[in-house]
Amino acid sequence: GTGTDNDLYINQAIVFIEDAIQYRSINHRVDSRSLGLYRWYYSRACQWILSLTITVILALAFIEKPSSLTITSDVRYRLPAWDPPCGLTESIELLCLLVFVVDVSVKSYLIGWEEFWKNKWLMAYILTLIVSLTDWIVSLSFFCMETVRIRRILRPFFLLQNSSMMKKTLKSINSTLPEMASVLLLLAVHLSLFTMFAMLLFARTKDGQQDKEWMRYFRNLPDSLTSLLVLLTTANNPDVMIPAYSKNRAYSIFFILFTVLGNLFLMNLLTAIIYNQFRGYLLKSVQSSLFRRRLGIRAAFEVLSSLKETPANAQQSYVSAGALQQVLQKAEMDSRCKQAIMRSLEMCSCDQLSAAQFQKLFEELDKDAIKQHPPSPGYQSHFMQKMQFAFGHPYFGYLGNVVALANIISICVVLVIDADKQPSERDDFFLGAINCFFILYYLLEMLLKILAMGLKRYLSYPSNRFDGLLTVILLVLEIATFAVYGFPHPGWRPELMGLLSLWDMVRLVNMLIVFRFLRIIPNMKFMALVVTTLLDLVKNLRAFAGILVVVFYAFAITGIMLFKGAVVPLGNTSNTSSRLIFCPLRVHLDLLLDEVVVLHSRELPILWLSLVTFRLMFFYCLLYLLSVNLICRWAKIYFVAWWLISSVIWVNLFVALLLENFIHKWDRRCHRASLSDVEYQRTVELMFRDVLEEPTEEELMEKLHQHPHLHLCR
Amino acid sequence: GTGTDNDLYINQAIVFIEDAIQYRSINHRVDSRSLGLYRWYYSRACQWILSLTITVILALAFIEKPSSLTITSDVRYRLPAWDPPCGLTESIELLCLLVFVVDVSVKSYLIGWEEFWKNKWLMAYILTLIVSLTDWIVSLSFFCMETVRIRRILRPFFLLQNSSMMKKTLKSINSTLPEMASVLLLLAVHLSLFTMFAMLLFARTKDGQQDKEWMRYFRNLPDSLTSLLVLLTTANNPDVMIPAYSKNRAYSIFFILFTVLGNLFLMNLLTAIIYNQFRGYLLKSVQSSLFRRRLGIRAAFEVLSSLKETPANAQQSYVSAGALQQVLQKAEMDSRCKQAIMRSLEMCSCDQLSAAQFQKLFEELDKDAIKQHPPSPGYQSHFMQKMQFAFGHPYFGYLGNVVALANIISICVVLVIDADKQPSERDDFFLGAINCFFILYYLLEMLLKILAMGLKRYLSYPSNRFDGLLTVILLVLEIATFAVYGFPHPGWRPELMGLLSLWDMVRLVNMLIVFRFLRIIPNMKFMALVVTTLLDLVKNLRAFAGILVVVFYAFAITGIMLFKGAVVPLGNTSNTSSRLIFCPLRVHLDLLLDEVVVLHSRELPILWLSLVTFRLMFFYCLLYLLSVNLICRWAKIYFVAWWLISSVIWVNLFVALLLENFIHKWDRRCHRASLSDVEYQRTVELMFRDVLEEPTEEELMEKLHQHPHLHLCR
Repeated sequence: GTGTDNDLYINQAIVFIEDAIQYRSINHRVDSRSLGLYRWYYSRACQWILSLTITVILALAFIEKPSSLTITSDVRYRLPAWDPPCGLTESIELLCLLVFVVDVSVKSYLIGWEEFWKNKWLMAYILTLIVSLTDWIVSLSFFCMETVRIRRILRPFFLLQNSSMMKKTLKSINSTLPEMASVLLLLAVHLSLFTMFAMLLFARTKDGQQDKEWMRYFRNLPDSLTSLLVLLTTANNPDVMIPAYSKNRAYSIFFILFTVLGNLFLMNLLTAIIYNQFRGYLLKSVQSSLFRRRLGIRAAFEVLSSLKETPANAQQSYVSAGALQQVLQKAEMDSRCKQAIMRSLEMCSCDQLSAAQFQKLFEELDKDAIKQHPPSPGYQSHFMQKMQFAFGHPYFGYLGNVVALANIISICVVLVIDADKQPSERDDFFLGAINCFFILYYLLEMLLKILAMGLKRYLSYPSNRFDGLLTVILLVLEIATFAVYGFPHPGWRPELMGLLSLWDMVRLVNMLIVFRFLRIIPNMKFMALVVTTLLDLVKNLRAFAGILVVVFYAFAITGIMLFKGAVVPLGNTSNTSSRLIFCPLRVHLDLLLDEVVVLHSRELPILWLSLVTFRLMFFYCLLYLLSVNLICRWAKIYFVAWWLISSVIWVNLFVALLLENFIHKWDRRCHRASLSDVEYQRTVELMFRDVLEEPTEEELMEKLHQHPHLHLCR
Repeated sequence: GTGTDNDLYINQAIVFIEDAIQYRSINHRVDSRSLGLYRWYYSRACQWILSLTITVILALAFIEKPSSLTITSDVRYRLPAWDPPCGLTESIELLCLLVFVVDVSVKSYLIGWEEFWKNKWLMAYILTLIVSLTDWIVSLSFFCMETVRIRRILRPFFLLQNSSMMKKTLKSINSTLPEMASVLLLLAVHLSLFTMFAMLLFARTKDGQQDKEWMRYFRNLPDSLTSLLVLLTTANNPDVMIPAYSKNRAYSIFFILFTVLGNLFLMNLLTAIIYNQFRGYLLKSVQSSLFRRRLGIRAAFEVLSSLKETPANAQQSYVSAGALQQVLQKAEMDSRCKQAIMRSLEMCSCDQLSAAQFQKLFEELDKDAIKQHPPSPGYQSHFMQKMQFAFGHPYFGYLGNVVALANIISICVVLVIDADKQPSERDDFFLGAINCFFILYYLLEMLLKILAMGLKRYLSYPSNRFDGLLTVILLVLEIATFAVYGFPHPGWRPELMGLLSLWDMVRLVNMLIVFRFLRIIPNMKFMALVVTTLLDLVKNLRAFAGILVVVFYAFAITGIMLFKGAVVPLGNTSNTSSRLIFCPLRVHLDLLLDEVVVLHSRELPILWLSLVTFRLMFFYCLLYLLSVNLICRWAKIYFVAWWLISSVIWVNLFVALLLENFIHKWDRRCHRASLSDVEYQRTVELMFRDVLEEPTEEELMEKLHQHPHLHLCR
């Protein structure tokens, strides 16, 4: 019947508009039951459950068997980590996998059979699930005693496939790979030619005294290659050239040539290439989002125009305002937008909407929310008005900054004075007293500002919220201190009472005060620009960060599997320790031990930090010299791969994105310095609005006619 | 009389055209005598003498008293450097300074009194000369025993003021300083806030075992600041966080936050800012060069049009072709350009030239010289023609590359096999035999190519010149080897005869073969692009490199003055050595000693390489911990300054220029891939030709009327 048809059309329009809002693809089934399933699948609850499942399955690694989630990282001191019984983590894992099975079935059903075969991501998803479930069964049948668990390395895939942004970014990175591979090839040629040169140059001589360089760095091909590879990362610079250099200064030419070509030219060329490839990346991605939005709205228009109540019009199709209102009421969207669209629909006061009018109504979605601060309270009394003027004035804020600076300086002075004192000699009176005074000032400042601006207006500024929150915390801490330890007096050094010692309390207060000093940021123009750029960057980098997490997770799990039991802490086995101790090359010995130990127990922060310097690789080369065994060879390959992916490629991607963001922002700042008073809630889309191209009607209609499930009459 | 006037005008035109060719300013005196002086001053001989003088005065530092120009850098082994008698270097210096006095007088006279007062560079030049001469007199009156020599630090100024490119670049860097200063301020704020945080976080505890982190890195304010500053350069990462991290994993958050904010964000922001500022730099500089050229040509036109022989024309001024020919014959310029202009002047066959025609004639100067290779010889015999086809074919070149690769691989294999052998066990037969074979092949290849292409055509390709030269050198070396040591046979291990041992000869041959392998570069498309980008970059970087040399020289001289006698080699004084040996922190002890020693004796290559890693600073901090004295404080400040200028600012400038060059080149490559067969002799000007704006007639005339010495009638 027409009633059912009409209901279907309305439902379709609702879903299409929701797709447009969320920048989703509209290529899904559009019959009534599927639409219900679709709305259920994309409901907040369902998506939240999916995210939670992904988080849980990724977090499992922290409590699974070769886990190291203890407070200290030092194997000598730390307690054994909690060892969950066999079946506990496995059953959680099964639960997660079952959720994924449901997810993949719903997704596959919704996009339809034909589309399914074209979608490589879904196929890979199903394959991953099958492998994971098989591995899970194998694992349980061995009673959790098996050594290799493939499914752990596959886990980050679930994170990857759930985010369209990450998939898009991966595609983009993929297209840069040929150029990157060229530079990496060039780098490899550079490295191998110089290695041969080095081996010929620093050959073994008959005089044993003269060949220090050969001994230490160029003993054979793998050593030479490693030395120069590490030089490329500058980790062993200038150590590697010292022996040769002290023999003859001319040898420095070799190392300088290598560094200039490899480090200054080729490495920076990689930055240039990646920047060049990514220059249009953000714009392209925003452009395709815009297209999806326009397409969703157009699809909604088309299905609404097929409603039976609309008068047949040969030339143009129209949508009745009533139908649109009905759709809007049922669609889930930001209430501010919904109201704005409703209002302009009423103001338009036309009964029939053309496609252009329809599209125009929804432009509200693209607009920035201009943030309006609530007004200050209007006081009657003349005195109060003067107070309001004085404490609402920016100068009062500046005074607050000056006081905060004075506080910082006073803390700094006390720190410098107390630096060499024994803890028992320390007197907390001075710091206690001045902090007490400053915190009282902060409280007063907050209260006066609230008085002048009213609570609502005060809270509408983020800097005030930051300020106020810290002031309240500081006040609570201070009151707690006084309650436990009494008021400060000379020689104020009471013993520990309660949770924290007085010294810790004072330190905490000081740290919060240092942190509170960040409130000066919005007052400095350049700083504010930098901070907003950084915040924008963080938004744009989410996809990149996600991919980094994926790579990171895979690397960490591989590392655990490769190096499990490779290194035993000092004192446990005499073999390893003696080998380490009686080696002639024991530079940085305890550090080396520490690092080996931490690697063994999968120390993510250190691995991450080593991203920047490649130093772990250097230490592994030392270890390699110490004990030539298979595991260390693996370690070398593992770290070179890690260095290439994280340090070389990821850091360069980051630089490229930063350049892109910053240059765009900088240009904008110069163009519209006058508008800077208005606070916008900026999104990436808005940043590029001036450059974006609106899709044409033909493009939209062509795409609509290619829809696999929606069959438009015309 | 008119004849004298005419001569003057002709001379003026000649000088203006020479100015245009050399992109010089035309704002100089234009009377007859001054023009003679001007042409003499800018003659090749004069400019060569000036450059030589600058080189000599800069090179003096290598033989002056605290000199270290010995083969080895190790103070324990090296012989004392040559100590020139007092007065030798000083008299050379005086000679140089007198040349500079002449230079500055001529320059000042030529630009005229009024212009002189506006020219700050000239004033600074005179001031530098006065200070240098005064210092020279003081030095001689102390019989060269004075400790501080200011004039040495001032020397690089002579290099700076002689290059207009460097002055322009310096101005450009200067305009970037405010933005850079903002980021550096931000960096300083970041550093100081985190230092305070660190001092509060890693405070001394009552339990002595627990505060390793405090002990090693955060003992007091200077130490904390240094630790974090070095962390910013990643030189002590992740060492600095190990003690805290092994106490509690959560401490890593502090270090990760610091690294992410400081290293990933702020440091890269500096790159972004410098890139943003320098994006237009090259274009602007090329644009102003173009303006100078057009201005010079226009000035020549204007003076020639005032010649009495020209018929008076109220509307437009004209220049007779005869006068232009006269000027062209006397002007010094590239003979190819001169001929081309003469030819087009004849082809034009007009007696009177308008300004536009005149300007158009000189456009030949801007054109690229399209390189034409001489034709191959035409052979009569059918067999020779077939030979020519076969050996002139690119595949023959590829075969040569394959053979060169095979040679490289064979050398590599021998190196790997011989790596662990004692020098006495080595047998040179195998390498000798295969190298003999390969060199014969290279000779044959060269001869066949010459046969196919003819000698002239063969030599017109740079890759062939490179190839041929190396082949000839290899042949000479091989013949010399056989002449001295006989033909290779198994067990070929003769003793040393003549200059080089057989082993050294073989090594040299091998190195040359590895070097010859670079001939593959033009055959790989991407490699060729990269190499041409690098060559372009080197051209554009000359000014930057000059400024780096200036800064470098000043730093090196300051370093010598500050650290003279600061460190005494091991064994000479028991005091220093014992202090170093009995220190609890003696990590990398001999390395540290080496470095102290090398710094003491001003080791430029190490200082240069430390640019990239900042490691010297790290070692100096260690030294600082070892022996707290004033000199080490100076060392710290000195190295931080060096790091900021060379590593942070210069490297970022380099990256910015590389990005600019590469992106421009890449775009061009994509646009005109079809034209890539034609070899251009590329200049920076040509790279930007499509984007350059021609100056308008009004701009040129306005500038001409502002000329301080030339008074045009109209």
